Amino acid sequence: MDATTQSTALLPDAGAATLAEQLASMLGERIRQRLLAPGARLPSVREGASRYGVSPSTVVSAYDRLQAQGLVVARPQRGFFVREPVVPAARQRPASRGVAGAADTNESLGTNDATHSPDARVAPLDATALIRGMFQARHRHGAPGSGMLPESWLDATLLQRALRRVSSSAPERWLSYGDPAGDPGLREALARRLADLGVRAAPAQIVTTAGATHALDVVARTLLAPGDAVLVDEPGWGVEFARLTRLGMRLLPVPRGPDGPDLAVMEQLARAHRPRLYVTVPVLHNPTGQSLAAASAHQLLLLAARHDFMVVEDDTYAWLAPPHAPRVAQLDGLERTVYVSGFSKFLVPQWRVGFVAASPALAHRLVDTKLLSTLTTPATLEQALAWCLEQGALRRHGERLNAQLAAARARCVKAAREAGFAFATPPQGLFGWLDVGIDTDRAAQQLLDEGWLCAPGSLFHAVPRPSPFMRVNFAAALDPRWWQSLQRVRGSGRMSRPRATSVHT
Amino acid sequence: MDATTQSTALLPDAGAATLAEQLASMLGERIRQRLLAPGARLPSVREGASRYGVSPSTVVSAYDRLQAQGLVVARPQRGFFVREPVVPAARQRPASRGVAGAADTNESLGTNDATHSPDARVAPLDATALIRGMFQARHRHGAPGSGMLPESWLDATLLQRALRRVSSSAPERWLSYGDPAGDPGLREALARRLADLGVRAAPAQIVTTAGATHALDVVARTLLAPGDAVLVDEPGWGVEFARLTRLGMRLLPVPRGPDGPDLAVMEQLARAHRPRLYVTVPVLHNPTGQSLAAASAHQLLLLAARHDFMVVEDDTYAWLAPPHAPRVAQLDGLERTVYVSGFSKFLVPQWRVGFVAASPALAHRLVDTKLLSTLTTPATLEQALAWCLEQGALRRHGERLNAQLAAARARCVKAAREAGFAFATPPQGLFGWLDVGIDTDRAAQQLLDEGWLCAPGSLFHAVPRPSPFMRVNFAAALDPRWWQSLQRVRGSGRMSRPRATSVHT
Repeated sequence: MDATTQSTALLPDAGAATLAEQLASMLGERIRQRLLAPGARLPSVREGASRYGVSPSTVVSAYDRLQAQGLVVARPQRGFFVREPVVPAARQRPASRGVAGAADTNESLGTNDATHSPDARVAPLDATALIRGMFQARHRHGAPGSGMLPESWLDATLLQRALRRVSSSAPERWLSYGDPAGDPGLREALARRLADLGVRAAPAQIVTTAGATHALDVVARTLLAPGDAVLVDEPGWGVEFARLTRLGMRLLPVPRGPDGPDLAVMEQLARAHRPRLYVTVPVLHNPTGQSLAAASAHQLLLLAARHDFMVVEDDTYAWLAPPHAPRVAQLDGLERTVYVSGFSKFLVPQWRVGFVAASPALAHRLVDTKLLSTLTTPATLEQALAWCLEQGALRRHGERLNAQLAAARARCVKAAREAGFAFATPPQGLFGWLDVGIDTDRAAQQLLDEGWLCAPGSLFHAVPRPSPFMRVNFAAALDPRWWQSLQRVRGSGRMSRPRATSVHT
Repeated sequence: MDATTQSTALLPDAGAATLAEQLASMLGERIRQRLLAPGARLPSVREGASRYGVSPSTVVSAYDRLQAQGLVVARPQRGFFVREPVVPAARQRPASRGVAGAADTNESLGTNDATHSPDARVAPLDATALIRGMFQARHRHGAPGSGMLPESWLDATLLQRALRRVSSSAPERWLSYGDPAGDPGLREALARRLADLGVRAAPAQIVTTAGATHALDVVARTLLAPGDAVLVDEPGWGVEFARLTRLGMRLLPVPRGPDGPDLAVMEQLARAHRPRLYVTVPVLHNPTGQSLAAASAHQLLLLAARHDFMVVEDDTYAWLAPPHAPRVAQLDGLERTVYVSGFSKFLVPQWRVGFVAASPALAHRLVDTKLLSTLTTPATLEQALAWCLEQGALRRHGERLNAQLAAARARCVKAAREAGFAFATPPQGLFGWLDVGIDTDRAAQQLLDEGWLCAPGSLFHAVPRPSPFMRVNFAAALDPRWWQSLQRVRGSGRMSRPRATSVHT
């Protein structure tokens, strides 16, 4: 690590603050932002001194300050650990309650990582820290761990035209709460869009939501009750795990292969735990980029029928998908599947427009849950999106976007190869599943020091455990300095590994 | 009931359909919309014939059709009952699971209504039917049960100007996901607004949500776990009861008096059940219109500290409140209180912008829950609202609105008095709590037949039970025909009461 990198790690606007104050302030902010998770271990004094280019006594002084602020606790012979935030009056809940159930499940399957220290708990909730981090540009070079497309890739003009059009339409359309199921015009446009994908759904079967995340939340709250078992992709998206866990569900991770879920493991889990639901990203799976084969979709539906569970098809990356990619809902006709998608990964993340398509009876129940959660959704923005869906400009935007992404992906794959890294799965869509070869939780903290926000593999495991993988956003990992930083961190990770257990304070 | 009213009850656009088909179609639609709740009993054949002006054999034929469609079930000697909707594959949950807990609680307190038939279950979920109904203008004269201000009272021009302004601002502001806590400009404007109300909150303590309902949902999901006990106002808002119940909470209803909750009952419940939260509408309480006295707020906080629960202050009607109405958060400084409000009852229901103000540590946790539920919220609309908050036009809109509401309230009170009705509490704010003197569930069904959407008292009880009260929206109950209909229904209700138990099929 060079001196420049080290100095940017400390606060540049700290003025007259001592180095210890600066270090404490930087780490304190990171703890408050959950970029250092509750239970995580701080670097040892020696490690910290080397990483931040300060003396060991400065590190000791900084850690003492953090302890005095109640942000960390010291454990004799073991080091300093991030404390749970203290919330006045509200009695704190253990964040990992639901995960315990999942861990039990996995222990019985032998997939739990026995080397994972019980102290170094990394709760799945901390996937939210990743998202929070995406919005904090301060002290950062970039966010290869981001889940978004670069802002410059989106079509601001199209959105502006849509919003202007809605704002000059009859304003009385905004004065009611709106249709609980969502703007009728958007639901009709979505029905046509789904027909293009081969999914048949009448507008009455479509319920709009405040983004695809909200759609998944509404579906889970409608179909599940605390204690229910839910099949999930392994690896999969941490926010989904965190939400299901917080709702009190037991997660049953199913390994995801090149063609889809491992159906043998799924059958075994279904028999043992009677899950109600399988939540999956069939097309351009997050984080591996893999897509479900038609034959796997068919077998999956047979298995779901045999064990009477439903399939929630999260098609968040629909607009980036290759044409004719099979969907489960195509085969099933929304009998046993629930289809979820949105516009954040294609058109506009911030308007928060998503939707669910389901059987007519289930769509009714989804509206009830939506009413309990947000009442309705902003029809103004739904009308603007409906207008976008009817424009030729949207098709052109899609073509341009996919060409840009393909070019970025090719550049990333080349840069990775040149830096000596390999992807664990064939690069497709927005995300690459990079094999870094060292514990990526630790690597992510070091890279954060250097100004890069990363998505370590542990975020994608239902049962948190160290992972050598990292999710890389092809569109946000084009800076050669990022690959250099990653190389350097891998080098230091490899060197320090043999003495990792002895380097405590 | 006159012939005109009877004929409007059946579908005017039914074309060549027989009367039985028309009646079955109307009732079927009502069942699907949950305006007739699962478990509710249809009118007896004799009642139905008289109500709809058809022959008993037409009613029998209509009920047979509904039975064939799986919408109702016949019970020998008891009549026809609305069936739970059949959802393919997803195994149905009993909707009243959480309520059972609440019912147990209340049985032990002797407040459960023993005369309430276990068959005629009206789940609190059906508060959502009321909201759904608000949007269905078909076959209706009006919606005195609505929770909204009339659309013509809102300031469409102000909203249009705000949206135009945002749509001509730098569109790159819409291209990111936005700040997870909400648009910084809106949070600053809200901090100033709260200061005007005497509630001190820094922008960092404010988290925006997709409306006040979403704010309450985020708070509940952050502070509660399934099985927790929650103090609620009795009467109170059914959507809140339904949501808490669906989240697995046990409801502890506390009678609401003129100055606030009955603190003696609350103390007793707190001692017995160790609740974590008290969720309340202190100012212009829904449905009674009452506001909390400062002394009660003080006593409430002492009680909350003694029993270590938090107070969620739902200030949805803030903009309609008298100046200087005390808030719990004023006294407490957001230590033990969480403050929730929004703009649906004042500016624009459909944009779904609400917010929570809380202690800094809790605000952080609320952002995590928000991320799991909707990721972020639409900053475009938040920016438009922030702009509105800074305009002199907003103050003028508020003055005009409150003057209009005061005039409507006076007219309603006069009309009620002339029709022989009295309000159970002094009329204030948007809602009156009208004493109708008969079972308002039954009255609401009859009024729906006549084209009026009402809010029967049972919607406002945590443990559903027949209620002689009805919530009346002063701004939506100005039509003299509504008061005539209500008089007529009361008359028929009184007449039929003595033979109510014998008039089954």
